[in-house]
Amino acid sequence: MNVDKELFAAFAFHAGLMAVKTLGMSFLTARQRFATNNFISREDGKTRPEAKIGTGVDEDVERVRRAHQNDIENIFPFLTLGFLYLFTNPALSTATTVFRLFSGARILHSVVYLWEIPQPSRALAFFAGMGANLYMGYKILSTFMSAM
Amino acid sequence: MNVDKELFAAFAFHAGLMAVKTLGMSFLTARQRFATNNFISREDGKTRPEAKIGTGVDEDVERVRRAHQNDIENIFPFLTLGFLYLFTNPALSTATTVFRLFSGARILHSVVYLWEIPQPSRALAFFAGMGANLYMGYKILSTFMSAM
Amino acid sequence: MNVDKELFAAFAFHAGLMAVKTLGMSFLTARQRFATNNFISREDGKTRPEAKIGTGVDEDVERVRRAHQNDIENIFPFLTLGFLYLFTNPALSTATTVFRLFSGARILHSVVYLWEIPQPSRALAFFAGMGANLYMGYKILSTFMSAM
Repeated sequence: MNVDKELFAAFAFHAGLMAVKTLGMSFLTARQRFATNNFISREDGKTRPEAKIGTGVDEDVERVRRAHQNDIENIFPFLTLGFLYLFTNPALSTATTVFRLFSGARILHSVVYLWEIPQPSRALAFFAGMGANLYMGYKILSTFMSAM
Repeated sequence: MNVDKELFAAFAFHAGLMAVKTLGMSFLTARQRFATNNFISREDGKTRPEAKIGTGVDEDVERVRRAHQNDIENIFPFLTLGFLYLFTNPALSTATTVFRLFSGARILHSVVYLWEIPQPSRALAFFAGMGANLYMGYKILSTFMSAM
Repeated sequence: MNVDKELFAAFAFHAGLMAVKTLGMSFLTARQRFATNNFISREDGKTRPEAKIGTGVDEDVERVRRAHQNDIENIFPFLTLGFLYLFTNPALSTATTVFRLFSGARILHSVVYLWEIPQPSRALAFFAGMGANLYMGYKILSTFMSAM
């Protein structure tokens, strides 16, 4: 039940980076809310008479929220898959490549989504991250199959 | 701070399975989007003149998204609760049963939700998974209470 | 790759607490759904002729769902950041303080959100939790930077 120190360090860096990146989406949403004067909860518009209150009102806000939700759907599974993958005895160089690919793909995904760069850019970034996740998932399931 | 190898393997298998299962929901959503020609982001409908753009427009799409969100709400906490539960000194047979119950319940939950099988099927699948999560949560909190 | 037993116990308690707290939001949502007779899926309203079916219909329901989503956005990253933070060699007293601050802030955040206590209460609770997360993220990234 021991994990190589360098292997763990590679995971720790990329998992920390991806968790912080996801947290950062909250600030981007808030920025758009203030920029477009668009809030959801009554109490948030109390001191702003011209505030719009509601969901789905402003596309600039909703776009950031969708990018945030996509991070939740892909980065949070990575935080567990990446950890369990450490116990499937991967080569350090392979693991580092998979982690870098995932981090790069997810950062790119947000850039492409928020700057509205034409498809298939977003699909490609999505599938690169998804591919890394599914690869690790396959390694985990085949390694621990007998414990089903 | 050591965990039995077989205990860890049982967790690793079921956590990997549940993470991959959640990722799979993205593909089911995409399938419904293309089948019903229903997208959210402008750029996704660029090459499809008849595409509908918006949220909440199509019930077939929204149903998959709700099932996905329910996985996020229940499976992601499991990924941590299952791991911490390993350190509460459970019997291997008990732990394996809890993990299997959870995995089975969550797979069933999606089947019931997507095939629109009448209630209380979905409620029962939900509560079986929730029960497993709360049981592990109780074990963790009572074991580590003194570290509050 | 060893972690102090007391340090791990402090994380295990607060991570377990936060995971269970997030799960609890499901019950608060369900309570509001039944109280206001408001559901999303057709099959849930089958036996209730007066049920309203749809999203965003009832503010009492949506408020709980937003609080739940905010937990997902902040507590799930904590579950990983808190764990990785254990490997950055923190003092036990510092780590315990950070974990307590986070748990307290997130419980307060829900109370303030659901009871609709005027701003800036919710913003303050949000930033306290976010601050704890970002502090741990900074510690993790600076500790494992060389493994990038």
